[in-house]
Amino acid sequence: MQPHESARGPHVLRQINARAVLRAVREHSPARVADLMQATGLSRPAVTRAVAELREAGLVVDVDETAQVSMGRPAQWIRFRAEVGHVVGVDIGSHKVIVMVADLAGKVVAAQQVTIGEGATGAGLLQSVRETIAEGLAKAGLVGDDVWAVVVGTPGIVEEDAGEVSLAPGIPGLAHLPVVDELRAITSSPVLIENDINLAVLGERWCGAAVGSDSLVFVHWGVRIGAGIIIDGKPYRGAHGAAGEIGFADVFSGLEAPDPTRRVGATSGMSEQGPFERMVGTQAIAELADAADALAARNGNSPAPPAPPASPEGSVAVSARPAPDAVTAVFAAATEGDPAALAVVDRIAARFARGLAAMLLVLDPGEVIIGGGLSRAGETLLAAIERHLRPRILTSPRLVLSDLGGDAVALGAVRRGLDHVEARLLAHPDA
Amino acid sequence: MQPHESARGPHVLRQINARAVLRAVREHSPARVADLMQATGLSRPAVTRAVAELREAGLVVDVDETAQVSMGRPAQWIRFRAEVGHVVGVDIGSHKVIVMVADLAGKVVAAQQVTIGEGATGAGLLQSVRETIAEGLAKAGLVGDDVWAVVVGTPGIVEEDAGEVSLAPGIPGLAHLPVVDELRAITSSPVLIENDINLAVLGERWCGAAVGSDSLVFVHWGVRIGAGIIIDGKPYRGAHGAAGEIGFADVFSGLEAPDPTRRVGATSGMSEQGPFERMVGTQAIAELADAADALAARNGNSPAPPAPPASPEGSVAVSARPAPDAVTAVFAAATEGDPAALAVVDRIAARFARGLAAMLLVLDPGEVIIGGGLSRAGETLLAAIERHLRPRILTSPRLVLSDLGGDAVALGAVRRGLDHVEARLLAHPDA
Repeated sequence: MQPHESARGPHVLRQINARAVLRAVREHSPARVADLMQATGLSRPAVTRAVAELREAGLVVDVDETAQVSMGRPAQWIRFRAEVGHVVGVDIGSHKVIVMVADLAGKVVAAQQVTIGEGATGAGLLQSVRETIAEGLAKAGLVGDDVWAVVVGTPGIVEEDAGEVSLAPGIPGLAHLPVVDELRAITSSPVLIENDINLAVLGERWCGAAVGSDSLVFVHWGVRIGAGIIIDGKPYRGAHGAAGEIGFADVFSGLEAPDPTRRVGATSGMSEQGPFERMVGTQAIAELADAADALAARNGNSPAPPAPPASPEGSVAVSARPAPDAVTAVFAAATEGDPAALAVVDRIAARFARGLAAMLLVLDPGEVIIGGGLSRAGETLLAAIERHLRPRILTSPRLVLSDLGGDAVALGAVRRGLDHVEARLLAHPDA
Repeated sequence: MQPHESARGPHVLRQINARAVLRAVREHSPARVADLMQATGLSRPAVTRAVAELREAGLVVDVDETAQVSMGRPAQWIRFRAEVGHVVGVDIGSHKVIVMVADLAGKVVAAQQVTIGEGATGAGLLQSVRETIAEGLAKAGLVGDDVWAVVVGTPGIVEEDAGEVSLAPGIPGLAHLPVVDELRAITSSPVLIENDINLAVLGERWCGAAVGSDSLVFVHWGVRIGAGIIIDGKPYRGAHGAAGEIGFADVFSGLEAPDPTRRVGATSGMSEQGPFERMVGTQAIAELADAADALAARNGNSPAPPAPPASPEGSVAVSARPAPDAVTAVFAAATEGDPAALAVVDRIAARFARGLAAMLLVLDPGEVIIGGGLSRAGETLLAAIERHLRPRILTSPRLVLSDLGGDAVALGAVRRGLDHVEARLLAHPDA
């Protein structure tokens, strides 16, 4: 059952009261008429009429009264039928595809993940995406027509209108593939595509480290570095969909360094790292850690053994790809107080803070989330970043680690899908 | 006559039609009823009734018909009475105060400027501001009660609600003075205070280099560097009013440079320059120019003579303080093709482009205006910035020089005052 194919939907939703009541029952489900009167400010007859229309449209249902009776006349309880439709959130990375299927209340009912081989091309990746979505839907016992929206997150600069990726770092051949068209075979409902980090910040704002924040920056810190930005409670994408690309900032070159010899983001070149991520991304950290290991070995200290990455708090159903061993090991050793490892963490944090500071001086956000693989390094790294960041900025944003870890993008995609469905369900019919 | 004191205003403006017609007549003045019908989509009786109400409230007046007659029955022409109220825009700088008085149509009817001595304190500066406003009003033949809003622009981080400046670089003693309270003696109308660069971007968007732009960054480049930002057509101030402080970014230190020894913006320290502006502000340029001069003298070339700064296009009534002689001279020589001067301009542009690129990678604006004293260096500098900037960013924003020069802040303050008055005039009375 799809909202744009339901003959009854428009009839119900033409009523402004029905829209208000739908919003209220979704938030407070199950609710009594009195609860909905209070939430909407509408009269009892108006709420009762709206509930009848929503019931007819299949969006709400009466809860079995016998279970709710305590004394006196049993109240009528109304439940939002979250199961009447679903959205699919997809995270396409260079090494994995994560699919989450959620009901209209945002509850994830199935999750599926596949690992992508090193040599995957854009076309092969798209096939994996289609298969993973199909597996996720099968797990949830759903078919394509149960899906009201699909939202896909991918690295790079996304041309939302064209339904494709104009610059796709790290995923050979993905750029200019008609991603949205390819996925239309799955469902006749809308398929949207968005930059993955822009979705991650939506996920964290929905159910992660900064719930409801209206002024928020999410910094993805892994092999690459980029930021998702929330301004006035809404995602900020920039004039060309390229906001937050701090990984390409050049903050380490020294005063009279020569200019870059080629355009940083040339179509063929964005798969290379930018100056900031080259100096502070996972690869740079692994090199620093290896150098420290070599130093420790020469000095006769044995380095700490590699430890598994910590499971991120609030992680849902699937977990992220582990950071390279050297990086994992150095953060584990730092947490146990190893001086050489602490020195590496301090150097990394000092570098990261310099680029982060440039972004925070420009944006002045209320809150900053550090996500991506490095965020799993935990509080030792966070404390070091804090120490190096504070002297470099003028204000005091709250600085926290990602709550959602590797699930942030897929959950953000789910949230974006829900927003899209809700905008359609609650849209004024004349709009 | 003040809108909040007029007994007739609320009566008129309670009518939604009157509001629409007011907006239309202000834009199209003088206009015929037929013009207003077309602009508003209202019927003839509705427009006629609204015009009668606006006429009674003193906001519109009939134009003498005999002047408009050509043949047949003369049409009724209606003029917006822009002169019925005024706003005052004030630019407080470390070396000057500029005051502009404008009518409700935004026409500047008087401008006044005073130079502030080197040793001026906050209290002395405020006295100069009061005197300059009084002189501007006298020039325009107005008194305090003719003023419907005063907007003050000042460097630093402004606490709009408190009506004072929390960090005031370059103006000793201004921080934490009750600026707004001090100016309330002039008028009983609202007095607003805002960061000067946030006002400059409003000015350029209103009548300068990027009229109507919805995605705009204005970079002030003088002794200090900072940016005013327009997002979705609205000024973006950040969570703490400190957005755009790119002058404090550290983009030149080299990879393993030590951290700053003290907090960049500590209350006592923001009067010092930040890392970016220290390396590329007017003082740094003067040093580079002097060094080039010394080199030229040693090589037996005579440096080009100093030229006066060019008058900015679109400048209104008052002009900005000239840049230091050495800076003026080097740009004049570069414009004439002097190789040593061109080399200096190239080095300056390369440095500036690095910091600017960091900001543009974060914000991805549609347009970028370069303003402040350096913008008067003209097209030679702009071309050099373009050359160094393009390889460093991912998108292609339009890059232009300021149109308004030293008047941008005061004109932006006028625009902000007009916006404030219009919001009050056109506000829904229940709001």
